[in-house]
Amino acid sequence: MYEAFWEKMGDRCTVEIKGCDSLSYFSNPKNPCWFLEPKLEEAIRSLHGAVGNAVTDGYSIVVGTGSSHLVNAVLYALTSNHQPNQISVVSAAPYYSAYPEIADLVRSGLYKWAGDARQFDKDEPYIELVTSPNNPNGVIQGSVVNRDGGILVHDLAYYWPQYTPITSSLEFNIMLFTASKCTGHAGSRIGWALVKDKEVAKRMIKFMEVTTIGVSKESQLRVANILQFIADGCKQFGSPQGDNFFEFGQSLMKKRWQILREILKENQMFTIPKYPLDQHCNFFGDITNAHPAFAWMKCKEEIEDCEKLLRGHQILARSGRRFGSDPGFVRVSMVGREDEFNLFIDRLSKIQSFNNGDEKDKANASGNLV
Amino acid sequence: MYEAFWEKMGDRCTVEIKGCDSLSYFSNPKNPCWFLEPKLEEAIRSLHGAVGNAVTDGYSIVVGTGSSHLVNAVLYALTSNHQPNQISVVSAAPYYSAYPEIADLVRSGLYKWAGDARQFDKDEPYIELVTSPNNPNGVIQGSVVNRDGGILVHDLAYYWPQYTPITSSLEFNIMLFTASKCTGHAGSRIGWALVKDKEVAKRMIKFMEVTTIGVSKESQLRVANILQFIADGCKQFGSPQGDNFFEFGQSLMKKRWQILREILKENQMFTIPKYPLDQHCNFFGDITNAHPAFAWMKCKEEIEDCEKLLRGHQILARSGRRFGSDPGFVRVSMVGREDEFNLFIDRLSKIQSFNNGDEKDKANASGNLV
Repeated sequence: MYEAFWEKMGDRCTVEIKGCDSLSYFSNPKNPCWFLEPKLEEAIRSLHGAVGNAVTDGYSIVVGTGSSHLVNAVLYALTSNHQPNQISVVSAAPYYSAYPEIADLVRSGLYKWAGDARQFDKDEPYIELVTSPNNPNGVIQGSVVNRDGGILVHDLAYYWPQYTPITSSLEFNIMLFTASKCTGHAGSRIGWALVKDKEVAKRMIKFMEVTTIGVSKESQLRVANILQFIADGCKQFGSPQGDNFFEFGQSLMKKRWQILREILKENQMFTIPKYPLDQHCNFFGDITNAHPAFAWMKCKEEIEDCEKLLRGHQILARSGRRFGSDPGFVRVSMVGREDEFNLFIDRLSKIQSFNNGDEKDKANASGNLV
Repeated sequence: MYEAFWEKMGDRCTVEIKGCDSLSYFSNPKNPCWFLEPKLEEAIRSLHGAVGNAVTDGYSIVVGTGSSHLVNAVLYALTSNHQPNQISVVSAAPYYSAYPEIADLVRSGLYKWAGDARQFDKDEPYIELVTSPNNPNGVIQGSVVNRDGGILVHDLAYYWPQYTPITSSLEFNIMLFTASKCTGHAGSRIGWALVKDKEVAKRMIKFMEVTTIGVSKESQLRVANILQFIADGCKQFGSPQGDNFFEFGQSLMKKRWQILREILKENQMFTIPKYPLDQHCNFFGDITNAHPAFAWMKCKEEIEDCEKLLRGHQILARSGRRFGSDPGFVRVSMVGREDEFNLFIDRLSKIQSFNNGDEKDKANASGNLV
């Protein structure tokens, strides 16, 4: 989705890597996270500072091969130290469909997936994954279990100004971010965790050592460049060069959501969540609205399997079932390429015409009968 | 260690990555390993063809964030499908110290570390990790358990011409390789598996999806360049440009081993394994010898803790204990930077002088007595 922005920036973010660069495993032997490139650490702190979405002072930064790697690492870090029993991992439904897969992948004796946080009623330690804005439904949310012995992990992949008003600079104990959702560089596989407790950070680092002995230097150096470029460019608004990435992103997301809402209003087949209107965004210094990365669409009640309905119209969507919800829901990406989005809108509008057609046929038939 | 080679190659392997390149998660949606860059796959096949160390026809290639990631993936792939009980993972001691860490990291219910393959006597399915040339001791070896229900995984990280004569093009079911040991690009975290069984490959891919959603595109594209450059350059021997990487590597390793052997001969404090002499290497088309990436040194019998002895002389070595062996052994890297190697040799020779000095003092003392 952000390709047009990066194309426009041309060579301004190009990195050049020689054959003799970055040969070593090490990036900074003095940092407990010895495989974190200092330039990336600097750019991450600089970007959070410029956006005002998260506090970084006093936090350790742990880099991972994407945010999934960090979710894996954090489960290990929070359970490997002392627990005799598997710790339950929960998240409020609808939850990100990868969480159960990650938690149960190798049937760990340290942790296990325990489903919807709202249904969790065991009196024992637990880990709650809090995704805000939420994947799949874009809702801003907090923890729901709120009991002793709970440890919270905040997945903030979508807490950036193009998706949601930035209402405060967060300072939770463990906060996860990823380049793919922030800048669009999914192929780089760079995620980072801001971690308050140094011991937890150390165990996450240990996990990275054993699973992958660190994280690609090339990706780190490139993403460092990209993040720094965004951080520098987002201090000015309305610049004629158009190099404020979040202005570009927000304006694109706003346009897409307008188009989607119009179609949905016309066809009356689906509902989407209501988001709080007109909040003050500290980043834009203005009133803005939510433009989630996904549309969480619910079919009209008579349609049981919304994914199937859309598949029939060649629209790829992920069933609500995958997110611990029901199949009347689907998640549709709002952050695909321009042509993919246009195709989605085009096909979605045909469901409307088709159904309108259907209704007309029925009407005609009825007309013939009476 | 290979830095000098890559510096000499200057800009010939430079990659340039623009801000708008490689944004997507996908590299090739038509390949079951959809996150594998086609250029990397091509370069891997081309390099194995040029070196003659492994057959690639009929094999699926799975890319990972370094070879460790692939070991993790292969354990999952070989156990996730049907086993009700944990499968034992063994390797002949001395074995690579990371294997037990990987196998037991999250206390998987699918597999567990079961130690030295030579001690394994259970009548049940098992996975044997066969490292050849072996880390830590450089020995060429095969499987040792050889019983029904065993699955072999061949870790061939060091099966390249600079370390050992290439005596045949291997075609085991699962073969693991990594850029770090082949070309020196450890920072890129690129490993690959050649996998005969498509279902095993699919499950490895699934593991990569859930743990990291693929592998850094930047690293893949850069390593593709590097491997292709090596493959192209290694077809000629004795070229005046000196761009046959394996000639460079072998000559450096040979020199280092000569220096080490001289020191060891002088100080008489340590023994090292004997390697088969003068084998025909299919790659060089000539008689060559083993020059392992590590020196597996055994102290004279009266010294119990060889790591401690070396630490006292500021030599960093890994105790034999870590490799399932005894503390009379240490593993010392032979592939560090030139200055590190020189420092190692310098300090090692001082142990000799020190001990010679010791002996002299003793001799003097004796002399004084008689």
